Amino acid sequence: MVEKRTPVAVKEAIERVMKRVKQLPPETVSLHEAYGRILAEPVLATHAVPPFDRSPYDGFAVRSKDTEGASGESRISFQVVDHIGAGAVSSRTIGAFEAVRIMTGAPIPAGADAVVMLEQTVQNGNTFTIRKPFEPLENVSLKGEDAKKGETIVEAGTFIQPGVIAVLATFGYAEVRVARRPVVGLLATGTELVDVSEPLAPGKIRNSNGPMIAAQLARMGIACRLLGSLPDDEDACFELVQKAVEECDAVMTTGGVSVGDFDFLPAVYARLGAEVLFNKVQMRPGSVTTVAHLNNTFLFGLSGNPSACFVGFELFARPALFSMMGSGKPYLPYEKALLAVDLTKPNPFNRFIRAVYTSTPSGARVAPAGFNKSNSVTSIARGNAFIVLPGGTRGFQKGDEVDVLLIGAEEGVPAWVLN
Amino acid sequence: MVEKRTPVAVKEAIERVMKRVKQLPPETVSLHEAYGRILAEPVLATHAVPPFDRSPYDGFAVRSKDTEGASGESRISFQVVDHIGAGAVSSRTIGAFEAVRIMTGAPIPAGADAVVMLEQTVQNGNTFTIRKPFEPLENVSLKGEDAKKGETIVEAGTFIQPGVIAVLATFGYAEVRVARRPVVGLLATGTELVDVSEPLAPGKIRNSNGPMIAAQLARMGIACRLLGSLPDDEDACFELVQKAVEECDAVMTTGGVSVGDFDFLPAVYARLGAEVLFNKVQMRPGSVTTVAHLNNTFLFGLSGNPSACFVGFELFARPALFSMMGSGKPYLPYEKALLAVDLTKPNPFNRFIRAVYTSTPSGARVAPAGFNKSNSVTSIARGNAFIVLPGGTRGFQKGDEVDVLLIGAEEGVPAWVLN
Repeated sequence: MVEKRTPVAVKEAIERVMKRVKQLPPETVSLHEAYGRILAEPVLATHAVPPFDRSPYDGFAVRSKDTEGASGESRISFQVVDHIGAGAVSSRTIGAFEAVRIMTGAPIPAGADAVVMLEQTVQNGNTFTIRKPFEPLENVSLKGEDAKKGETIVEAGTFIQPGVIAVLATFGYAEVRVARRPVVGLLATGTELVDVSEPLAPGKIRNSNGPMIAAQLARMGIACRLLGSLPDDEDACFELVQKAVEECDAVMTTGGVSVGDFDFLPAVYARLGAEVLFNKVQMRPGSVTTVAHLNNTFLFGLSGNPSACFVGFELFARPALFSMMGSGKPYLPYEKALLAVDLTKPNPFNRFIRAVYTSTPSGARVAPAGFNKSNSVTSIARGNAFIVLPGGTRGFQKGDEVDVLLIGAEEGVPAWVLN
Repeated sequence: MVEKRTPVAVKEAIERVMKRVKQLPPETVSLHEAYGRILAEPVLATHAVPPFDRSPYDGFAVRSKDTEGASGESRISFQVVDHIGAGAVSSRTIGAFEAVRIMTGAPIPAGADAVVMLEQTVQNGNTFTIRKPFEPLENVSLKGEDAKKGETIVEAGTFIQPGVIAVLATFGYAEVRVARRPVVGLLATGTELVDVSEPLAPGKIRNSNGPMIAAQLARMGIACRLLGSLPDDEDACFELVQKAVEECDAVMTTGGVSVGDFDFLPAVYARLGAEVLFNKVQMRPGSVTTVAHLNNTFLFGLSGNPSACFVGFELFARPALFSMMGSGKPYLPYEKALLAVDLTKPNPFNRFIRAVYTSTPSGARVAPAGFNKSNSVTSIARGNAFIVLPGGTRGFQKGDEVDVLLIGAEEGVPAWVLN
């Protein structure tokens, strides 16, 4: 008898996974290792930014009241009494019609309340003239205008991109509290698989899912433990998976989750006592994708078909792993685009078609990346997106507006916006 | 006298840089190190995909002609004569009303030309019945339907994302020819700078541009050589920059390119005999960005202001470095979005405002990421995009459609689409 499985909606399947995510504990890394990690704690301003009133330009610090009435016909002259670079502090207090030569970033000297830009002066030896009045605080960056001391600058759960690095450096965070990365184990299944460096034999194909998943994890900054291949024997499978669950936060398998005679994983899940969150999803490709959960470890049973394996990882494993790291934006970014071709074949399930998305000032377009079958390996090498077609009986025509999910963005979005 | 500089348009400035790019020579890496690199050679199909006619499902291989006339009322029965898993090959040639139990991915046995899915059968011991006829080649993945032997699957210049890894693995590329990564040196300038772990002193700020640029490079997979700080002395500057040019494919400096008294870089460029491509750009922030070129080495003179430094890197250094690696998609991706706030202040130069871009089924919106001045460091920690406002006298209102460039995409786009 063939086991009867009840397909769940994609959105429901994602929710079942995400509801069971437990955040991993934080760890400390040095600032130069922090790029690509996820903040475990908010970044607070340890001091005001700017830390003092400073000049945003190269020029001359003056008293604004001395500039009153300046014009092209009636230029006002100033005497330069000191000369300071960024990082230096003038000991002079500026008096009437005095000025201090000041560099970008240097503190405003005592007495001064405006900066005349170099370009706004005519210089002559130790004096210069101006042709316009300056307001109090004109060309002055005020202490704290960018950030106040104690203010939260970046929230916990934020992906540490280069701008976050800049802020961490500014506030003296030589070390950063980040989420620990999940330990992910990878088990290949399938006696038809040979390694990349092995020659093909009749009936064999090379294992492409393993290296692909390792790269999908690398893209998330996560290392992958290669745990070998599942043997075509249920007892041996059970022992290998049991050990993997003990060692890992997530165990990925490819293949073996279908209803075929050599698909031992459903039986292994049962023997382990794992909670099977779903074993059939209303999507193509990847409908056989199975996710189980045991002692805070996820078992991602991905399809053995390359395209289906890829989709299953991006839709279920990726947000779960990001969420384990505390990310507030674990989902693939959404776009809307006009379909560049007809896709007339109706399908009862949601379809995720590997696609090339392009956006220019004249609009956003999307087209399938190539040969579109779940066992296609060439189409996944092309393209940067999925076209998502809702399940139903109607097909889609060129020019129709369709949903698109982008693959390969550095940081995702906070919500799954599709049904 | 203040040096008079002629600002060039952003597009023109980018073109001047890109025209001088020379592609770096290729090198060989192993497949497991290839993620994130750029292909130096196209990936050719070393064999057909599928390499043989195979079953895309678990089921039974049959002769389609034996299924003619099957219906719910008149089921046709088949005898199972062999049983093969993926990777195995049946030695049997199928005869009339015979079937071979076949797994997903297994070769179609001799004589068979269709696959009955498991779900389409009622099984009884060693026999099963079907209730519908099957077309010739129904549920058969034909040899070469995904790719023909010798076909170009992925072009040279493509970013090696996980799907490319899958294709490389499929075709047995245990080693991959990729572009060498550029050697990039980083020189900080500014006597006001203290290191991240040092305490602040009056007039000092911490060096945030150095760690930020290192992370911007890390995002591109490029390591950064920290070459120290430029001293506030022209001769010492000259020697340090000269040495850096000899060792590096690109030298980044932050600060020191303005027209202030301590800005030695223009003089250093002149003494080196470097071709200054531009020293003023029609953009805010980052108008002082300077790019020079000498013996195939780029000198990126970025602003010392964090926001301006960030923009200068993304607009000029990033595409140049990607192009040196042969990337066909070196530019930031473009989007269009509705402005979520008023930005009424007109500016004669193009503005690049650090922004938060969000796209949902109800449309795309963009809003400034925070405090918007060139010396702001907090706004660059937030957001995933630039709002690009064309230079001119008019301001922009909430609801206006504006240009957006996305930051942090894995792979860019082939062209700079803005003026």
